[in-house]
Amino acid sequence: MKAAYYQGNKTFKIGDSQAVAPGPGEVRLDVAYCGVCGTDVHIYHGAMDRRVSIPQVIGHEASAVIAELGPGVEGFEVGQRVAVRPLAPGESSPVDNGCTHIGKNLKFIGIDTPGAMQASWTVPAYTLHHLPESLSLEHGALIEPLAVACHDVRLAMVKPGENVVVIGGGPIGLLIALVAREHGANVLLSEVNTQRLDFARELGLATVNPAKDDLVEAVGKFSGDAMADVVFEVSGTAAGVEAMTKIARVRGRIVMVAIHAQPKPVDLFQFFWRELQLIGVRVYEPEDFDEAIALAAGGKLPLDRVITNVSPLDQVQSVFEQIDQNPAGMKYLLQCQ
Amino acid sequence: MKAAYYQGNKTFKIGDSQAVAPGPGEVRLDVAYCGVCGTDVHIYHGAMDRRVSIPQVIGHEASAVIAELGPGVEGFEVGQRVAVRPLAPGESSPVDNGCTHIGKNLKFIGIDTPGAMQASWTVPAYTLHHLPESLSLEHGALIEPLAVACHDVRLAMVKPGENVVVIGGGPIGLLIALVAREHGANVLLSEVNTQRLDFARELGLATVNPAKDDLVEAVGKFSGDAMADVVFEVSGTAAGVEAMTKIARVRGRIVMVAIHAQPKPVDLFQFFWRELQLIGVRVYEPEDFDEAIALAAGGKLPLDRVITNVSPLDQVQSVFEQIDQNPAGMKYLLQCQ
Repeated sequence: MKAAYYQGNKTFKIGDSQAVAPGPGEVRLDVAYCGVCGTDVHIYHGAMDRRVSIPQVIGHEASAVIAELGPGVEGFEVGQRVAVRPLAPGESSPVDNGCTHIGKNLKFIGIDTPGAMQASWTVPAYTLHHLPESLSLEHGALIEPLAVACHDVRLAMVKPGENVVVIGGGPIGLLIALVAREHGANVLLSEVNTQRLDFARELGLATVNPAKDDLVEAVGKFSGDAMADVVFEVSGTAAGVEAMTKIARVRGRIVMVAIHAQPKPVDLFQFFWRELQLIGVRVYEPEDFDEAIALAAGGKLPLDRVITNVSPLDQVQSVFEQIDQNPAGMKYLLQCQ
Repeated sequence: MKAAYYQGNKTFKIGDSQAVAPGPGEVRLDVAYCGVCGTDVHIYHGAMDRRVSIPQVIGHEASAVIAELGPGVEGFEVGQRVAVRPLAPGESSPVDNGCTHIGKNLKFIGIDTPGAMQASWTVPAYTLHHLPESLSLEHGALIEPLAVACHDVRLAMVKPGENVVVIGGGPIGLLIALVAREHGANVLLSEVNTQRLDFARELGLATVNPAKDDLVEAVGKFSGDAMADVVFEVSGTAAGVEAMTKIARVRGRIVMVAIHAQPKPVDLFQFFWRELQLIGVRVYEPEDFDEAIALAAGGKLPLDRVITNVSPLDQVQSVFEQIDQNPAGMKYLLQCQ
């Protein structure tokens, strides 16, 4: 019954996972696997020390088995396998516009409250999604990032036959590319890391390296001069923001997936001139988890390839160090039992 | 039969309007009134000398009476009153995405080709919209800018009861505010020019001066803390771009009406965090002219108040000088017969 406590200063310490008895509407889980998110790496780097209580168990990309039901929980049974949608909406606010998944008082479980990098984890039952028997618990830990990709592709309204360019080939960019392909789009992945490019090509994706080739020309060639119906900006770079308006066709949709901590120059003239749209996207809604589970269970996504490494929880420190040293890595999972 | 020729160097010269016999599919018009657009003022300031042939008759906000039909023109008769939608789409291109009104090979009549500041003007028949008898030719000259506002409100999908903030209270911002109000929205106009603020209030619009009062607080108060469902950025200023992301509610739509010649810093984090949307809008489509004509003919818009001044065409030089000296002015019309 271990837990990984983030201590600040790029340090985790292994301690005890304290089983918390589930209150009304809650469920206690035996966590199977917890994936490491870019946000977890951000926390590890100290970038979110003001938001995270220290010491804190972090992690929010979990698959689990139900260990105990709190009073009043219906629709779940002990022993069932689940994925966790780690959002606690909190009280609604007029500014929320009915969007509880990104409301003003939202708490992100695993950032604002204790997370999944531990053996025993107690969460509200409303966060749970059943995992079908055909889905392994390893793949179950990919449902959360896959739901991000499903949300982004859904809000982009990607249609079959559309030309889609994904700027940035990290885990989320790659999953977006794969989900968009499942939606019938022609997908081009733009990335500067050659290992990531190789990996994307191995998965059958068309790629371009904008550090080597002119991106606008490449998109023109890829699309028969139609340019991109949809652009996903997942790079978080000024170069990505500069490129996004250049490669979109008239009335193209640009989807802002990346977190740009500081304002960046945007070519607003192009938004006017070609009636472009920018669509902000964040986390997911329940239907995105449903789609992610259906896609993963359908077996067409190369999820085994997306998992770079699986390590026991007590190697958490080494796993975060590996991630820092291997920018081409995709998903690192921690085995939590 | 006069025409106003733009000569460069902030100078117009009155010369002859040469009646051009209409070719196949064309119509020769007797121009009644031509409004002065912000773009015309830009041209006058020399900012578009690379695009405009000099000497050139400019102007594109026209009402007119049909004087002569070219071969093959159907649906129009000599003597009928019309407004002109001054767009010549040109050959379609794959990048156009079917949007002929903003296609790659679009020519804007009155900028790229001779315009309406003359007595006799020959244009393609497909640019014409009938004006009903109930609409004066003075109001007919407002149809083009009103169609811009209708287009912007339509693409913003403004719904009854929504809270709308218009940043910038010049002619287009004001028309957007009036059209959004007609669509049932609660409209707040943000403007720093006190004369424009007074004028907007006289028309019954709620206003805020962000140079005096905190805009975020004002929008909060106006909306019962719901903030803006829709923000129209019409100011063209960095302050407007900075404000637009602060006052939009979750999933708010920000409409980019203004022409920002240079890239400006945009708070992309807010697009992510609150799933905001940015919607670029430019000119209009035929249905926007139809709506503008219906709204104007309906008599509920205070169009008389929007017309600041009507002058004979041969006073064109003085009119442009007046506009430069009176930033609070709205629409200046030139009488072209």
